[in-house]
Amino acid sequence: MSNPMFDVIEADLKELNEGLIGAVTSPVDLVTEIGTHLVTAGGKRIRPALCLLAAHGGPAYSLERLLPLAEALELIHTASLVHDDVIDEADTRRGCITANAKWDNQIAILSGDYIFARAFGLIAEGDYGNYVSKRLAELVCNLSVGEIIQDHTVYQAVKDLDNYYNRIQKKTADFLEICCELGAFVGGMSKEDVQKLAEYGHCIGMAFQITDDLLDIQQTSEKIGKPAGNDIRQGIVTLPVIHALSVSPDAAELEGIVTDSAMTDEMVARALAIVKATDGVEVAMAKVDEYLDRARSVLPDSLAPEIREAFVMVADFIGDRDF
Amino acid sequence: MSNPMFDVIEADLKELNEGLIGAVTSPVDLVTEIGTHLVTAGGKRIRPALCLLAAHGGPAYSLERLLPLAEALELIHTASLVHDDVIDEADTRRGCITANAKWDNQIAILSGDYIFARAFGLIAEGDYGNYVSKRLAELVCNLSVGEIIQDHTVYQAVKDLDNYYNRIQKKTADFLEICCELGAFVGGMSKEDVQKLAEYGHCIGMAFQITDDLLDIQQTSEKIGKPAGNDIRQGIVTLPVIHALSVSPDAAELEGIVTDSAMTDEMVARALAIVKATDGVEVAMAKVDEYLDRARSVLPDSLAPEIREAFVMVADFIGDRDF
Repeated sequence: MSNPMFDVIEADLKELNEGLIGAVTSPVDLVTEIGTHLVTAGGKRIRPALCLLAAHGGPAYSLERLLPLAEALELIHTASLVHDDVIDEADTRRGCITANAKWDNQIAILSGDYIFARAFGLIAEGDYGNYVSKRLAELVCNLSVGEIIQDHTVYQAVKDLDNYYNRIQKKTADFLEICCELGAFVGGMSKEDVQKLAEYGHCIGMAFQITDDLLDIQQTSEKIGKPAGNDIRQGIVTLPVIHALSVSPDAAELEGIVTDSAMTDEMVARALAIVKATDGVEVAMAKVDEYLDRARSVLPDSLAPEIREAFVMVADFIGDRDF
Repeated sequence: MSNPMFDVIEADLKELNEGLIGAVTSPVDLVTEIGTHLVTAGGKRIRPALCLLAAHGGPAYSLERLLPLAEALELIHTASLVHDDVIDEADTRRGCITANAKWDNQIAILSGDYIFARAFGLIAEGDYGNYVSKRLAELVCNLSVGEIIQDHTVYQAVKDLDNYYNRIQKKTADFLEICCELGAFVGGMSKEDVQKLAEYGHCIGMAFQITDDLLDIQQTSEKIGKPAGNDIRQGIVTLPVIHALSVSPDAAELEGIVTDSAMTDEMVARALAIVKATDGVEVAMAKVDEYLDRARSVLPDSLAPEIREAFVMVADFIGDRDF
């Protein structure tokens, strides 16, 4: 995501970046070096930004009070990406070399553990009460379970849409929901408004992941910086593919391809062509619009105009996203 | 460790085992299956047992109150072993197949993350206050940092004993210290007695790890179930080796071997012979005795006789350990 929608919290995000480096500074130089590499490697701070925006909705905004929580959210995201990169044997992420490539798998696994633990340490220091700790522990559980489900069902062409929605909820939407919810909670918003912002976070998270899945099908490889059809190649079926498996006259051929773990580049291209020949992309785009309409409509009335505007810009941005 | 020393808390440990299975039970069957495999794979429950014993020293022992903490300690240990086994590409542990061998590396990494997060979830549910959460987050940080230091200094023959003691403290002693400390703390012991039990935990932890390192040098491969000289082979120098590097007439030859990542079995055998020809084993054993004497001497006077006796038996057991 680009920056204008977060202009209203620009100064807060600058302090957050400094805080993140402080959070991974250790008496052991190597650990500091690894941690600093990870927290400065191009992260867009979407999660802490949502948390801080939501907190601005409350009557008693204090950056000092919010920072440990916002930092912990970014660290949890960072740690889970570090472990994902080990699993995917990725060499680069956001244009930077990954920890597993720069050091090795064991350093990357242990650094991920270290960063997860630093996040929970910050939460303890922030003294937010058990509810916040409990929700963050649930979040990390769900992130792991979401990945386990995904890894376990690759090349299986599960046609059940509930399975898909459940997976992207655990993988993406729960995280954005918690960022908004806990920001609003710690910012002191009413219980009702906390729930509204949580729903906003859920909706933009679902929309964001469906868009991400769509880009993998629609875009050229050059534009998204990885091969198009990458999900299909990895055996992950997304909304347009699941739709095509129901409606395409070539559904049997498509199913044969997406369940073949030895599929060739030609087969991936053929699968993409079958999906694009259906209305799968349009169906997915309509679902994105539905989630974003809902997100805009649940924003609490109590928000200050500039905060509401920022939240609306985030939703607009996801709808317009083409990279 | 064998059981008699924990007889006094036998009923508690039975409930703990049931609780651990409950703690890893998930709506996703595969996650439950993996979690159950991990928490029933031969763990000796030393960490939760120390926690429960220490809590029995307090005026207000309540198993119900202590269980989430004791379970969390075992889960943190389990998760760190799961990640260690991925790093070491181990197929078995305690006679059971490892998660990476039974499933694969990605499942093992994600399950480790899941179990770490469950531990922090239990701590939040237990409502012990920030001090306990903060100490456990520090523990996981230290475990990771200890491993990172160890991995980063393999085949380097660091002769500095402080480096060795620092490493085994982070790897083992800090964990046993925290088990005793937090058990005593939640059990309601006085601040002074909490500190005494923390020191007891530190001392038996240091003694336990030095003994472990000694066994790798002294025992036959059959007895310890892995090749003798395994640490040397992996480039990890332990107390007797560090001592030999200072005092042996063959120190230069020994250093040449332990810094050679391509060492052969013959070279490992020669390194073991050089170490055994010095008083390195005796020096290490004397250090173990020193730690255990200190451990027995710091036990608080306020302990009930059967609890004190159990703590003394643990120390005796570590001193007599030959497997």
